[in-house]
Amino acid sequence: MPPSSRKVSESAIRRLSIYLRVLERLEPGEEGTVSSQILAERAGTTAAQVRKDLSLFGSFGKRGLGYSAASLKDRLREILGLSKHWRVALVGAGRMGAALFEYPHFRRRGFEFVSIIDSDPKKIGTSWDDLTIRAADTMEQALRECGAEIVILTVPARSAQEVTDAVVRAGVRGIMNFAPVQLKVPPGVRVNAVRLTVELEALTFALRADEDGDG
Amino acid sequence: MPPSSRKVSESAIRRLSIYLRVLERLEPGEEGTVSSQILAERAGTTAAQVRKDLSLFGSFGKRGLGYSAASLKDRLREILGLSKHWRVALVGAGRMGAALFEYPHFRRRGFEFVSIIDSDPKKIGTSWDDLTIRAADTMEQALRECGAEIVILTVPARSAQEVTDAVVRAGVRGIMNFAPVQLKVPPGVRVNAVRLTVELEALTFALRADEDGDG
Repeated sequence: MPPSSRKVSESAIRRLSIYLRVLERLEPGEEGTVSSQILAERAGTTAAQVRKDLSLFGSFGKRGLGYSAASLKDRLREILGLSKHWRVALVGAGRMGAALFEYPHFRRRGFEFVSIIDSDPKKIGTSWDDLTIRAADTMEQALRECGAEIVILTVPARSAQEVTDAVVRAGVRGIMNFAPVQLKVPPGVRVNAVRLTVELEALTFALRADEDGDG
Repeated sequence: MPPSSRKVSESAIRRLSIYLRVLERLEPGEEGTVSSQILAERAGTTAAQVRKDLSLFGSFGKRGLGYSAASLKDRLREILGLSKHWRVALVGAGRMGAALFEYPHFRRRGFEFVSIIDSDPKKIGTSWDDLTIRAADTMEQALRECGAEIVILTVPARSAQEVTDAVVRAGVRGIMNFAPVQLKVPPGVRVNAVRLTVELEALTFALRADEDGDG
């Protein structure tokens, strides 16, 4: 049984995803057993951190022998919820929405777009790949019909909360938020936000600290 | 003197950015003094966390009186390196690059695009706004000429490291990486990575834990 997600830090979860990528990119010949050192080096962390992160989810390796790459890969996929395909709706078909819709890595990892919603009359009724863009005012029905489990939200900040309320009413429990606003959702609904300007500012924070001679 | 960026957690830095946004969005009448409770509520954290984060950078408020919104805003801008404009080059003019180039919030916060680089002959020589897209093989010179301080990197994973090496040779010290690969850079160069699939997997991790009845 996996531990509660509340016991695992957000950065640990992100490292698990990165370990999975490292495992998926092992060269032929490396695919049998993999050490925490190799995982650490390629994931940009330390071997101790790798062992600590993985130990949160039980015992994987034998001391001194490393991890079985195949079974660790399977287990990480399972922990990260990747044993299944996820049905994703894109809400907001602007430039950022288009970029995310085309982002090849989502599809490769089993995220399937099942609906696109927008409020722009010029976009409604047109198609991206084989999906017809539906009107925002029919969103709840559209999300229910397609069985969306996750919404990728790329609407303007001013409408993000109102749209989120409708997404929640439609029964969606996971929201990936790209709107630069703190969303309020009821218990049981999960939001992960990518705040692009906040990320850029984390970089300028570090650059500024370096300039001050403290980095 | 600000503390070393190494002493401040990555999540604390991100919260500072979010506090700044909350301060910038105070309603008329709220703009005098702001409590840690108000900051916490709107930033989605606790008042104790707000006080702890801000105390990392010195004493801002008077106990029981809250913070002066104006001076806290100025100080946060300074800490985050936002007292200056940053010259940003976009390397990779694909769909994601286009979405980031058009992202209005970067410009509003004082990030100025000064160069666009791509390797696609069909794009080289064309313009986005008043910037002509330059060829990848002249990138080092282009980055030097425009005085780029930050590169936003949206090239495919397979070429990301090679491009990064050239970016570093051109003297750029900050890289915002959207390529799904762990970049190697020399000391003194800062990388902040936005890994979109990793972020989506942090969401599926939580959804999966909820399904198991542990969330």
